[in-house]
Amino acid sequence: MTIRTDLAMEAHEMCRSEARESAEIDGVSAAEENYDGVTITRVNIINENGSRRLGKAIGRYVTIEAADLKYSKSEFDTVCSLICGELRAMADVQPDSLTLVVGLGNGKITPDALGTRVVDYLMVTRHIKRYMRDVLSDNISNVCAVAPGVLGTTGIETVDIIKSITEKIKPQLVIAVDALAAADIRRVSTTVQIADTGIQPGAGVGNNRECINEEVLGAKVIAIGVPTVIDAASISNAEIPEDLSPLMVTTQDIDTVIDRMSHAVATGINLALHKDITVDEIENYVG
Amino acid sequence: MTIRTDLAMEAHEMCRSEARESAEIDGVSAAEENYDGVTITRVNIINENGSRRLGKAIGRYVTIEAADLKYSKSEFDTVCSLICGELRAMADVQPDSLTLVVGLGNGKITPDALGTRVVDYLMVTRHIKRYMRDVLSDNISNVCAVAPGVLGTTGIETVDIIKSITEKIKPQLVIAVDALAAADIRRVSTTVQIADTGIQPGAGVGNNRECINEEVLGAKVIAIGVPTVIDAASISNAEIPEDLSPLMVTTQDIDTVIDRMSHAVATGINLALHKDITVDEIENYVG
Amino acid sequence: MTIRTDLAMEAHEMCRSEARESAEIDGVSAAEENYDGVTITRVNIINENGSRRLGKAIGRYVTIEAADLKYSKSEFDTVCSLICGELRAMADVQPDSLTLVVGLGNGKITPDALGTRVVDYLMVTRHIKRYMRDVLSDNISNVCAVAPGVLGTTGIETVDIIKSITEKIKPQLVIAVDALAAADIRRVSTTVQIADTGIQPGAGVGNNRECINEEVLGAKVIAIGVPTVIDAASISNAEIPEDLSPLMVTTQDIDTVIDRMSHAVATGINLALHKDITVDEIENYVG
Amino acid sequence: MTIRTDLAMEAHEMCRSEARESAEIDGVSAAEENYDGVTITRVNIINENGSRRLGKAIGRYVTIEAADLKYSKSEFDTVCSLICGELRAMADVQPDSLTLVVGLGNGKITPDALGTRVVDYLMVTRHIKRYMRDVLSDNISNVCAVAPGVLGTTGIETVDIIKSITEKIKPQLVIAVDALAAADIRRVSTTVQIADTGIQPGAGVGNNRECINEEVLGAKVIAIGVPTVIDAASISNAEIPEDLSPLMVTTQDIDTVIDRMSHAVATGINLALHKDITVDEIENYVG
Repeated sequence: MTIRTDLAMEAHEMCRSEARESAEIDGVSAAEENYDGVTITRVNIINENGSRRLGKAIGRYVTIEAADLKYSKSEFDTVCSLICGELRAMADVQPDSLTLVVGLGNGKITPDALGTRVVDYLMVTRHIKRYMRDVLSDNISNVCAVAPGVLGTTGIETVDIIKSITEKIKPQLVIAVDALAAADIRRVSTTVQIADTGIQPGAGVGNNRECINEEVLGAKVIAIGVPTVIDAASISNAEIPEDLSPLMVTTQDIDTVIDRMSHAVATGINLALHKDITVDEIENYVG
Repeated sequence: MTIRTDLAMEAHEMCRSEARESAEIDGVSAAEENYDGVTITRVNIINENGSRRLGKAIGRYVTIEAADLKYSKSEFDTVCSLICGELRAMADVQPDSLTLVVGLGNGKITPDALGTRVVDYLMVTRHIKRYMRDVLSDNISNVCAVAPGVLGTTGIETVDIIKSITEKIKPQLVIAVDALAAADIRRVSTTVQIADTGIQPGAGVGNNRECINEEVLGAKVIAIGVPTVIDAASISNAEIPEDLSPLMVTTQDIDTVIDRMSHAVATGINLALHKDITVDEIENYVG
Repeated sequence: MTIRTDLAMEAHEMCRSEARESAEIDGVSAAEENYDGVTITRVNIINENGSRRLGKAIGRYVTIEAADLKYSKSEFDTVCSLICGELRAMADVQPDSLTLVVGLGNGKITPDALGTRVVDYLMVTRHIKRYMRDVLSDNISNVCAVAPGVLGTTGIETVDIIKSITEKIKPQLVIAVDALAAADIRRVSTTVQIADTGIQPGAGVGNNRECINEEVLGAKVIAIGVPTVIDAASISNAEIPEDLSPLMVTTQDIDTVIDRMSHAVATGINLALHKDITVDEIENYVG
Repeated sequence: MTIRTDLAMEAHEMCRSEARESAEIDGVSAAEENYDGVTITRVNIINENGSRRLGKAIGRYVTIEAADLKYSKSEFDTVCSLICGELRAMADVQPDSLTLVVGLGNGKITPDALGTRVVDYLMVTRHIKRYMRDVLSDNISNVCAVAPGVLGTTGIETVDIIKSITEKIKPQLVIAVDALAAADIRRVSTTVQIADTGIQPGAGVGNNRECINEEVLGAKVIAIGVPTVIDAASISNAEIPEDLSPLMVTTQDIDTVIDRMSHAVATGINLALHKDITVDEIENYVG
């Protein structure tokens, strides 16, 4: 089986289905919860065997699936709260700690624009804290953000850009946001994966492969991803010419969906980083 | 066989391949030429049998294939000239006749934005001819353009919008530009089809089905289309859920490719409608 | 005094200030109300003298000013409700009457994009009512929308496009939305004018001058406008070269402000046309 | 006199006009040339007195004015060649030296988007030279590019982002591109300034004030700027409220003009950095 997925829960499903295993895979634990129509799957990869079997780094992967997020304001709100809760469970954000949010991907290719659009919706405060400290209350955390672009347009490895910036500004936490590929089209634009393992930029539609993780950056890295495409190979029965620009399979409503998912992810991050803040206050700030 | 294609040449290929026919299909003639690496295929559907077999209206379909158009300025120039030549062969544009160019599709969905972007690159002159007649020389033709939007965002059938406008301004020629679906991924973004049969808006990624043709509009209609997607069904071996937003399969570089193809199609139209004009003069005018 | 304004309330202010009149101008009545920090000014031009003095057509002009709309969710909500109330006071929308919303202006020039963006946020239902009647409850009205473009890019007078469409689909009500010019920079992007007099397309940044009103269209026309620019002449002490592209003076945050104002205007229209619908239901529908 | 300009030639004009000086200002030399309707003004600030009088750093400032660049393909080509020539005169680009092009400004505000759009049109090669060395001939130089965003959206001083990246990748040359403010509206979108003095990000429409220069970056810095706005204060006879978002005065055609100027600047840079390359080859590469 060579169907590509960036979701640990799909890798786990495929792995079990392949092996026709009824028992758990050694080194992997999985559990599922439901909140108001939203499903949370927690896959923990706890040893090398689990990592090898699933093709993913050791760590925690939380997947939030909300099939009606696109149409339902209440699912949207539930997803924002769940992202907030999971981020807070993974990272201990203190009032004065600095968080760098990295919006990965190419903002000019719609299904790859998730990361850059999340940056647009963020409450960025570092410059205000530095130059106009008094205007922000203490429950507003110190947040900055970059959208470093992709190797094909910058000529510089994305991880090198992020590494050089983190060396300069020394954040305690890095949140890296990127578009992902799923195996199952139903998970495209309905699903958020949060992982404490770091991320490979370009996993969604690109192809450069260095990891953005704590080992490289010297700061805790949480990765948030949303599947926006499936690989053509996942659904194809035809040979796909290798000399073509890579294919992507996505939904026709991807433009509006990307906007809605970016908004949900950004709101979840804003709620997690800043204490006792309401969604209305966020909207007022972000404009 | 249910693979969908908007290209008459692909329908012809599939029809012959299915039937393992070595002889021509009754009611269809086809011929191929080459110019500097660019292939022109002419499929003429000349009777009801041909129309039924290929699933296309009776008429002439010219397909221009340029595999390197994306990277090669000389193929780009060749394609512009060929579009110009084919348009002039199909329509007799007189100095004072009025042409309406209709840019079909949804400008907010990249693979469906071809029509609206062609309108952006057009030399539109009708208002100048009306209000500042003397500033334009006689070799500049009378051209106007609309991008009527799609049923899903206007709530009005596209053909009704176009029909009401043509009744008001009474053009002699309508050129309708739209994104198409191909069966073969290699034809996506490398191919232009010109047909004297009219067009169904939404053939590319939408689904409303009325025809824009001479019978309906009372003016000759030439359709120009570029395949920008293949249907997921064309390459899928999996069942695709019917309750999802329709899938589209396209290339990752679709944003830049759409821009280049729109530019080529608009330049071909500009060269065809205005006499003795150079590409540089067009660029100066369009800005 | 030649400072240009599209706001009747500013024309009234200037007229009285010029004439140093303490008494009312004959043919004009004006009144002001306040709701939670939002100011409503009602200027009624009731005879030819008033029309001549203010340089505006006879009719009702309601101006809603909300200085903090950009940052305040509660002012945003107040403005949406007020737009809804004023629209309902001016037009009697019945369950089966058809409303056409026209988004005027050039979507590619940010300060002129208000009209086209309002169309993006509208609940358009006419096609659903026609083809899938049962999915919509009776409190959802029959609404369609077009963004006809501007003379400079279509070559067709905007009023001719709208007139031809209204002749075809015969709406009972037309709501025309456009960007306006104000005299006072503080009214840019903080103000909504609703008038029952029709509108001249291009009043904001263009220059074509035909009127879109009941006399021309045969249906009641309500105009909704938001000032997004002031004319350079309004603030200039220098001679502005006439051979240049017209200048516009606007704020640096015009991109985000246009988005917020479009959202407010569209929400007000959606609330007015559809009965007993909540903002959340609108968001779910529009996506 | 407090009219703000980022153009040394305008500062020089104003300074002489103020002082009614017929003689040169001590510490400033100026000369003018003409090529086919394009005017080149060279202002050299050679000592502290000149720097203080003009309010600009010591160094060379070359201004290229092309009033018809927007409409004339030949002026466009002339400007591209002149930018190439001036860049080569200021910097010695060797086959293996690395150049970093920095696109400053906020890509979401049209008049501030020049820098980010220049990056879109650049021939970026560093990643190809690293990973597929053989596909590029030796006359193609080593080029990378970043668009670091603005302080208001990243929360990080732009100069800190650039400094951290230059420390990592160690370019021999940095070319920083930004939108500027002019005093004379006729210079908006018709003028290119090239300076060997570095640049202050946000000089165009923002307000953060650190310098990007050789002293800070440890690499030669050439600044290329295009005026896209004039300050409202430059033309205003009215008091402009200080609590508003800063005003900008620009032309209505700024969207298309920014695109054309970005293209010209990028083409000039591409021609300067890569040897014996034609404009057609650039277009093929950039796509």
